[in-house]
Amino acid sequence: MPQGKPEVVPDDGLTTRQRRHRPILAVHTGVMKGKSTAAFGMALRAWNQGWSIGVFQFVKSAKWRVGEETALRVLGESGQGGPVEWHKMGEGWSWARKKGSEDDHAANAREGWAEIKRRLAAERHDFYVLDEFTYPLHWGWIDVADVVETLRERPGRQHVVITGRNAPRELLDAADLVAEMTKVKHPMDAGQKGQRGIEW
Amino acid sequence: MPQGKPEVVPDDGLTTRQRRHRPILAVHTGVMKGKSTAAFGMALRAWNQGWSIGVFQFVKSAKWRVGEETALRVLGESGQGGPVEWHKMGEGWSWARKKGSEDDHAANAREGWAEIKRRLAAERHDFYVLDEFTYPLHWGWIDVADVVETLRERPGRQHVVITGRNAPRELLDAADLVAEMTKVKHPMDAGQKGQRGIEW
Repeated sequence: MPQGKPEVVPDDGLTTRQRRHRPILAVHTGVMKGKSTAAFGMALRAWNQGWSIGVFQFVKSAKWRVGEETALRVLGESGQGGPVEWHKMGEGWSWARKKGSEDDHAANAREGWAEIKRRLAAERHDFYVLDEFTYPLHWGWIDVADVVETLRERPGRQHVVITGRNAPRELLDAADLVAEMTKVKHPMDAGQKGQRGIEW
Repeated sequence: MPQGKPEVVPDDGLTTRQRRHRPILAVHTGVMKGKSTAAFGMALRAWNQGWSIGVFQFVKSAKWRVGEETALRVLGESGQGGPVEWHKMGEGWSWARKKGSEDDHAANAREGWAEIKRRLAAERHDFYVLDEFTYPLHWGWIDVADVVETLRERPGRQHVVITGRNAPRELLDAADLVAEMTKVKHPMDAGQKGQRGIEW
C-alpha cells in the first residue's frame, strides 16, 4: 500500500490541491505482459468516477483483448459509471468513412493519431488508453515530437495512458508516470503456450 | 504483442494441450503500483470466460480499491460473464460468524487464509485474486510453507494471482509467472499527491 506521501514538495507555484488534480500522462513499458492489463485496471477506477473513457488499440488483430473489451463495454452500458468507447485499428477505425487499406498499417496508425489529436483538442474523454501505441512511434510511422507536444499542450483534465514496448525516450521524458513491467518468470519459458482466460 | 511461442518444449510427458491448460500461479511484486491493477485487469479476461472469481483483500481499509470492486461487482451481476465474490479483511471477512478483533490483524489474516484453503479444496472458484497477500506472509502471520504446499497441491483448474511487495522467495519459486513492477518515474516523486480516479 502506498503511503501517498510525496517525497518532495516542489516549488512550482501550485497549491497541493492544484497539483493533485493535474492530469496524468502514464507510460507502461517493458518486456513483460501486464502493461495493457494494468492500463485496463486503471480504466476500472476511471469508469467508477463516471469519467468518459476512450480506448484506441493500435494492433493489427481486432480480436486482441476481447475479454477487456467485453468487460469495459458492459460497464459502459451498465447505467453506472462513465461511458466507454473502444476503437480498433485492426478492423478499421470506426470513425473512418472509407476503410484504409488493410495492408497500409502506417497510414492507419496515422489516422488513429489524427483522431486522438482532434479528441484531445475537443476534450472528448477524461481517460484515454492508447494501447500498443509505442509501436507506430518506434517504427517512425507517427512523429514522436508531434505526439509529445500535443500531449504536453492538451487542454483541461485529460488523463492518458500509453502502453507498449520500446517507448521513445522523448515520450518517457514527457510522462508523469513510467512503469516498467519486468519479467522474472513466465510459463512460456517453461514451454507452456498461452491459454484462454489468462492471455486473452 | 507476445509471439505466443514457448522458448523451449519441455520433456514433461504432457501434450501441448495439457500443458496449455495447466492452472497458473502468478505473483505480481515490486515497488511500483500496477501489481493489483494488473491482477484486476486479468480478472476481466477471467470474467469474460464465465469463470467464477473470488477476490480476497488482505488490507486494513475496507475502502481500498473501491473502483475495481464496484466495476467487478457490476460485471458479476450483469448476467454476462462469470460470478464475482469480493471479500475484505478490512471490514471483517463476510463469512466469519463473529467478527475478529479489529486490532488483531494477524488473526484476521489467518482466518482469511483458512477460508481460501477451504475454497481451494472445494474448487469453489476458477480465478482467485489474493490482493496484498504477501504482507501477512512477509510479517510471519501466515506460514509460507503451508501456503506453498496448498497452492502446489490445489486440485482441478484454479488460477491464483497473488499481489504485494516483499513476496517470499519460496512463493516466487513455486509460481509459474512472476511479474515485477518497477518504478521508473512517478508523480509522487515530483510532489504530486494521489488523486481520485487515478489512485483509487
